[in-house]
Amino acid sequence: MANSKYEYVKKFEADDKLPPYNWIVVRIDGCHFHRFTADQEFEKPNDQNALDLMNSCAVSMMDQFPDIVFAYGVSDEYSFILKETTQFYQRRSSKILSLFVSYFSALYIFKWKDFFPHKALELPPFFDGRVVCYPKLRIVRDYLTWRQVDCHINNQYNTCFWMLVKSGKSVKEAQELLKGTQTKDKNELLFQQFGINYAKLPAIFRKGSCVYKDKVEETVKLDDTGNPIKRVRMKVTVGHFDIIGPKFWSEHPNILEEES
Amino acid sequence: MANSKYEYVKKFEADDKLPPYNWIVVRIDGCHFHRFTADQEFEKPNDQNALDLMNSCAVSMMDQFPDIVFAYGVSDEYSFILKETTQFYQRRSSKILSLFVSYFSALYIFKWKDFFPHKALELPPFFDGRVVCYPKLRIVRDYLTWRQVDCHINNQYNTCFWMLVKSGKSVKEAQELLKGTQTKDKNELLFQQFGINYAKLPAIFRKGSCVYKDKVEETVKLDDTGNPIKRVRMKVTVGHFDIIGPKFWSEHPNILEEES
Amino acid sequence: MANSKYEYVKKFEADDKLPPYNWIVVRIDGCHFHRFTADQEFEKPNDQNALDLMNSCAVSMMDQFPDIVFAYGVSDEYSFILKETTQFYQRRSSKILSLFVSYFSALYIFKWKDFFPHKALELPPFFDGRVVCYPKLRIVRDYLTWRQVDCHINNQYNTCFWMLVKSGKSVKEAQELLKGTQTKDKNELLFQQFGINYAKLPAIFRKGSCVYKDKVEETVKLDDTGNPIKRVRMKVTVGHFDIIGPKFWSEHPNILEEES
Amino acid sequence: MANSKYEYVKKFEADDKLPPYNWIVVRIDGCHFHRFTADQEFEKPNDQNALDLMNSCAVSMMDQFPDIVFAYGVSDEYSFILKETTQFYQRRSSKILSLFVSYFSALYIFKWKDFFPHKALELPPFFDGRVVCYPKLRIVRDYLTWRQVDCHINNQYNTCFWMLVKSGKSVKEAQELLKGTQTKDKNELLFQQFGINYAKLPAIFRKGSCVYKDKVEETVKLDDTGNPIKRVRMKVTVGHFDIIGPKFWSEHPNILEEES
Repeated sequence: MANSKYEYVKKFEADDKLPPYNWIVVRIDGCHFHRFTADQEFEKPNDQNALDLMNSCAVSMMDQFPDIVFAYGVSDEYSFILKETTQFYQRRSSKILSLFVSYFSALYIFKWKDFFPHKALELPPFFDGRVVCYPKLRIVRDYLTWRQVDCHINNQYNTCFWMLVKSGKSVKEAQELLKGTQTKDKNELLFQQFGINYAKLPAIFRKGSCVYKDKVEETVKLDDTGNPIKRVRMKVTVGHFDIIGPKFWSEHPNILEEES
Repeated sequence: MANSKYEYVKKFEADDKLPPYNWIVVRIDGCHFHRFTADQEFEKPNDQNALDLMNSCAVSMMDQFPDIVFAYGVSDEYSFILKETTQFYQRRSSKILSLFVSYFSALYIFKWKDFFPHKALELPPFFDGRVVCYPKLRIVRDYLTWRQVDCHINNQYNTCFWMLVKSGKSVKEAQELLKGTQTKDKNELLFQQFGINYAKLPAIFRKGSCVYKDKVEETVKLDDTGNPIKRVRMKVTVGHFDIIGPKFWSEHPNILEEES
Repeated sequence: MANSKYEYVKKFEADDKLPPYNWIVVRIDGCHFHRFTADQEFEKPNDQNALDLMNSCAVSMMDQFPDIVFAYGVSDEYSFILKETTQFYQRRSSKILSLFVSYFSALYIFKWKDFFPHKALELPPFFDGRVVCYPKLRIVRDYLTWRQVDCHINNQYNTCFWMLVKSGKSVKEAQELLKGTQTKDKNELLFQQFGINYAKLPAIFRKGSCVYKDKVEETVKLDDTGNPIKRVRMKVTVGHFDIIGPKFWSEHPNILEEES
Repeated sequence: MANSKYEYVKKFEADDKLPPYNWIVVRIDGCHFHRFTADQEFEKPNDQNALDLMNSCAVSMMDQFPDIVFAYGVSDEYSFILKETTQFYQRRSSKILSLFVSYFSALYIFKWKDFFPHKALELPPFFDGRVVCYPKLRIVRDYLTWRQVDCHINNQYNTCFWMLVKSGKSVKEAQELLKGTQTKDKNELLFQQFGINYAKLPAIFRKGSCVYKDKVEETVKLDDTGNPIKRVRMKVTVGHFDIIGPKFWSEHPNILEEES
């Protein structure tokens, strides 16, 4: 009972290799998280535990898939950047997309109890994802800028919105009050009405999270005279930086390097 | 701080709509499950609980995504078939693939404790996936035949292999003994050496699992005279049938219907 | 001076094989023919010589590329249908498209003088093209219907328009008069004002042109007693039929056959 | 008789827009030119008239399609480079490919008599083509190097081969003699046996042809005192340069400019 007669059906599988020498970005996004975060009673506008869970998943992603050179997360979305020269699964789009979104989803539920020990998951949360190719480094930088600007816009709006709602406004009233307001207006509203200096809010809320490999010096053991023997190794690290300006990138020149 | 200046990066997202009037098959496959099933000490060659977990996930998939008309599972893989006319997410390939593989992975971990109450998950299992288009119903049928023939070939081999190993052969000896054997040889080996009639083994092992919607009659409530008021509704059902021959399909003509 | 160092640039060539078991349609369309036909003073609304030239090119296409099973032409466009099982150039889209559009363009200029012996070509006419896959025969039939309905709509409009212009109306007046008219109105206009019975106009104008292989009986030579020895062979044939209804197709069942 | 019912067949036309910010290369290649050049008795190894015809077609291509910034031709092939930011036909691959290959083929036949006034075309020559995207300028440069190295390798081989054949060797003997020879061996063979200094052969044979826009100063008219009024304009120019080293490119920095 050989199977060869039916193997022709494999010929319908399209070749989906991504073009060479393009940076690969995989963006994962929570599906129906508006409802999920309501059901699970997340803190609004930001739930520190939920963000820590997302970041922990991203760190595990980088450990599992060493071809990821940088990840940037905000709210229920995470972007993973693979180097332009990666040969991970021969750059097959479906393979990369499905592995990334599956492992991230698996991690999120697997780690849930570590971040929400007192809240059982009621329904399994899940994510969608997409793969995008960027032909030049400067466009990858623009991509990251796009996400961090979005983080800022959303977080500032949500901070105002939830302060208004918590202070007694209805959802509709809060939306009305914020319609058409600019950054400056929102900062003033927060300061005047709620005594909040937006710039002093935790960076994780305002800037999102960067995950990358950084050199760390570790004490491996002590030598015979009791002096520490140290070793430098690369460790996956989480930080909350401005990635729009050049500072972070000039301090970490090895993260996104373009071949010349 | 408008974001429009950077939104051009969205133009790099390729249009990945699948061609109209093609049947869509999404196949999900356990990643590194050889090691995962060893770590979690699954029964060999088949772990009933693990198969029940896979099937339970498939049932939930069909409840969540009503565009799935049929699913077929074997071992750590599952194929989901969407009708040729589905407009689910405008037939966007990445969206369908990522949602399916993410939700299936999430379900697998979420439901784990229901099927393995005494075995904690040590590491998060995950899956890869792919999307394939088939232009005609008869090729979808050939696809399913391909998977069920594969189920048969693998299960028969694995049954022999594990019986030999459990009876004291080394892995290498067992592989040597099975090299070049035909279906008939393997049936004889099982019967002569282990008294096993292969055809009597559970159908779930030999045939895999079909998941589909079937009409079921349910008692909704009793009327005033105590007679049951019944209603027919479609319910997601699991069975273990031959799907190579015409019998199952002629008994369930509505599952895979081609437009004419 | 080996070239291997630079051959990596070939890896950027995408795999563009068309999916198996789909009918392939290549449609070729005159580029800037509005101006070209004015420059070359084509008869309006239809130039018999120009249509004969198009048809002659299509016949040569079918001789050159035997995988074409049917072609349909109207005005300055031609559609070529390749069988669903064709393996022509491994079904590579760019190869098929470029060869078809190049050879058709080459033929058009090469044969020009045979159809327009007294009109030199002033500028080289050229064509664009596209490749489309259709998963089922009935959709290929709908494709052909779409083109023939279009032929009818355009030809009826153009016939009215040019009769009005030739009778002294300005372009604008002719357009105004025809705005919003239905098939019936146009037929009446032609009959009332110009004594033209639309249905009696040449079929090539009203129905376009079908090119296909038909059995023809030919006398090969005479035998010793002077009787003709005949042979049946397939010959590329041009006709002007209704291809919307079933008649033509049931009379020529072998042209578009679907595998079962 | 509205056509809308059948217009759904247009939905099968795939979106084939090429990704943004990639350089686009269209390479056109003579189809069956081995036979065509034999039938038309081209000079071997190089036919100056045939190359002039190819170059004349390339010049007309650049006049017709201003988005082409550079073209490189050798033998019966031509590569056309479109700027990374071109929006020509919204970067639709089929449109660009079909127009380019059609117009080039049309030009080739249209111009034939100007370059071969005494040789009628016996059959219409035609071309195939492909479109390739390159994400960075340096890879486009590698692409051009690949083609020019290929020109060198082929031309040197063909020069040796045809000198041997013309001197009385059979095709087989000539092939045997050249098997395994290096560049240096071939140069020596040409010099020793035929007194040919390879480096002194016409550059068009050794280097191929570059087509690009260059500034030229033209006298528009004379002013009142009889002095010429000059104007600088861009004119499509053909040259035979080394495009592997940096010299040509640093002398013409505007041809291939990358956005920063």
